[in-house]
Amino acid sequence: MTLDVLDVAKRAREAALKVANSSVESRNQAILGIAEEINSQKQCLADANSKDVNDATKSGLAGPIVKRLKLDESKIDTMIKGLRAVAELEDPLNRTLLSIEMDHGLELYKITCPIGVLCAIFESRPDALVQIASLSLKSANAVILKGGVEAKNTNRILTDCIRKCLRRSKEIPEDTVQLIETREHIDQLLKMDEYIDLLLPRGSSSLVKYVKENSRIPVLGHAEGICHEYIDADADVDMAVEICYDAKVQHPAVCNAMNALLIHKDIAPRFLPKIAERYIKANVELRGDERSRKFVPQMKPVTEKDWSTEYLQLILAIKIVDSVKDAIDHINRYSTHHTDGIVTTNTSTAKRFLNDVSSAVVLHNASTRFSDGYRFGLGAEVGISTGKTHARGPVGLEGLVTYKYVVAGSGQIVSTYVGEHPKAFTHRPMKKTWN
Amino acid sequence: MTLDVLDVAKRAREAALKVANSSVESRNQAILGIAEEINSQKQCLADANSKDVNDATKSGLAGPIVKRLKLDESKIDTMIKGLRAVAELEDPLNRTLLSIEMDHGLELYKITCPIGVLCAIFESRPDALVQIASLSLKSANAVILKGGVEAKNTNRILTDCIRKCLRRSKEIPEDTVQLIETREHIDQLLKMDEYIDLLLPRGSSSLVKYVKENSRIPVLGHAEGICHEYIDADADVDMAVEICYDAKVQHPAVCNAMNALLIHKDIAPRFLPKIAERYIKANVELRGDERSRKFVPQMKPVTEKDWSTEYLQLILAIKIVDSVKDAIDHINRYSTHHTDGIVTTNTSTAKRFLNDVSSAVVLHNASTRFSDGYRFGLGAEVGISTGKTHARGPVGLEGLVTYKYVVAGSGQIVSTYVGEHPKAFTHRPMKKTWN
Repeated sequence: MTLDVLDVAKRAREAALKVANSSVESRNQAILGIAEEINSQKQCLADANSKDVNDATKSGLAGPIVKRLKLDESKIDTMIKGLRAVAELEDPLNRTLLSIEMDHGLELYKITCPIGVLCAIFESRPDALVQIASLSLKSANAVILKGGVEAKNTNRILTDCIRKCLRRSKEIPEDTVQLIETREHIDQLLKMDEYIDLLLPRGSSSLVKYVKENSRIPVLGHAEGICHEYIDADADVDMAVEICYDAKVQHPAVCNAMNALLIHKDIAPRFLPKIAERYIKANVELRGDERSRKFVPQMKPVTEKDWSTEYLQLILAIKIVDSVKDAIDHINRYSTHHTDGIVTTNTSTAKRFLNDVSSAVVLHNASTRFSDGYRFGLGAEVGISTGKTHARGPVGLEGLVTYKYVVAGSGQIVSTYVGEHPKAFTHRPMKKTWN
Repeated sequence: MTLDVLDVAKRAREAALKVANSSVESRNQAILGIAEEINSQKQCLADANSKDVNDATKSGLAGPIVKRLKLDESKIDTMIKGLRAVAELEDPLNRTLLSIEMDHGLELYKITCPIGVLCAIFESRPDALVQIASLSLKSANAVILKGGVEAKNTNRILTDCIRKCLRRSKEIPEDTVQLIETREHIDQLLKMDEYIDLLLPRGSSSLVKYVKENSRIPVLGHAEGICHEYIDADADVDMAVEICYDAKVQHPAVCNAMNALLIHKDIAPRFLPKIAERYIKANVELRGDERSRKFVPQMKPVTEKDWSTEYLQLILAIKIVDSVKDAIDHINRYSTHHTDGIVTTNTSTAKRFLNDVSSAVVLHNASTRFSDGYRFGLGAEVGISTGKTHARGPVGLEGLVTYKYVVAGSGQIVSTYVGEHPKAFTHRPMKKTWN
């Protein structure tokens, strides 16, 4: 089969215009239908996934990739639960963000609407496919899914389940969700800014970087999470120990795990030996600067490269700083602006840190691991963005919608409002909603 | 003088971190100070501008460019008034967009904050420099201004006025506003995604296109405005005539002027001869499709190229369509998604059009010329964006701010909320604001 990617993109654009006008009821119904369909296809799905896992193992793919690829019963159940939860979410569309009376009988409404065509590019995890497809449907966007080749049998069954439900829907075109399988098509997709409005890369930081560097289409994603905790002179030592242990050890392989620990010089004698003992017991490899190594001689020396390396494992860089200012400067220089925290009992120091650190998420007296859409209570997480515009930090459904301005007039023309005797606008904020 | 652009960018980044923490009072004071300073330098400014205008005329620059370049007393007064108006605007920062209790003593706040470093690239108009600088200051961003070479003497005086006021400020670094003068530096700036967060091109569509095609930095701007009015079968003919005349004739050289007129076949016999007569009197060149030329034989034939050409002058493309669906399809295909309107007395047809047309601004019974930040009542207009993410349509100060999440905890760790006996989050919406 030769796949014409341009044709896929064109059909996505067509579908986007139609799904944008579907009712939220029909979209929720489709999402619930997909949950049912996957539930009834469990065996078929398990067989397809076994084939993918066997092929991946045979071809020597790395253990963690095979693990992410594997879809066991519990993962399928989580997927089904996830779909039902997305159906339950509030409709993100047609919300009136602003309404202004420009003049009597001339009203302005700023209302949320779908973005159009999304393109999600992911690796290994077939459950991500279902999650992205359901969030796209919920927000009435069309989506092109580029799955990993290693998951092709699983992805095909999942996409079949989804498209089968869309065929049953009167309002949602089947091409609202389309699957592309081969890596070679990525470069073509990245050039299609005429048809694709937003890219959602989900996978390794090298994938995300590649996407960002090779496309002019806006990208919602983050390449790396280099997250810090700063332990201030006025920190509660026990609290700081618990937070730092959690931030590094609880799940080191994820982007919101702590990468570097900055410690105020005045608290280091009381805090550093204590936390180091905990870390060493948990097999964390510590890499410290000269001053910190005086407290824990078995630490390796930290190098300049460490400050900008995302570990994703039990390694931690440690530095002693002279002030909150030094901590802020270090973070603003080396952080990937993902998530950074301070531990202190001093409210004004905390405020300064939270204001001055220019990261998407800043925390006071809490573990960096809280930086997550579900934990935040955003309802669903589309991804975490380290971009500064559009959507930032953990992104919920609001990252998949945009807005449009609707002007409802009664024959007004601009000539009336300009020239020698211009009529004045009233520009009165209204509390009216559109529709 | 050899200018090190990298050095300018680095200093902008430094300044951005500082101005982000300045008080709104000091920023407003600086903006009012600039108004005073420009007022006191009127003569000096007029002299510098005369030199620029003379040089431009001598070097044979086109009339409209020289006109935009010229800074007469009335333009200077408007500039000063504009500065004072910006000082009066509400502070766009530190607004709490969302607050959620994640658990007792663990609170999440989504608050507005500056983006960081802006880079505005504009041509000819020196008044744009002052406007962008004041809006950047108001939103606590640093800005690199790349002015047109032809306005260099004027731009230098204006930048001197601005930086003089910043030097007097204790909280705002002078390098919050920097000027770059030569065209060659643009390409260097476009590559500096490490230092520049948002590009604001203001000028010809070729400039905007160039910027978009040559940078990975997000761009707030629009290349072209191909705007439509659709006159429905159920339109009030007199209203339609007034709106279409205004949309085309009132100021044809701007992006929100009408470019193409779509007319339902059933109303064409009553509407088209009437509006054509008005247009012909106003010297509008009409280019029609075959069906419309039956009503107005003196029309030139429209070509495929016309539908995607931004005229910016008294030329109009005209087409007769069979249905609102045909009008919507035509617009979604050829529009630059800037501004498109419908004239009809039929509410359900209007609703369909307003929903289905995927443009930033859609209008019902009003001239496309209303598509403007000041007319909308947004307070100030940073620009009009045809991008679908971040900021769309006429963009006010909200386009120059982003947000960050602040988590205020009291020692919480994620381990408590996962595992075999996880504590539940409360995820209760709060009405509290941050600070």
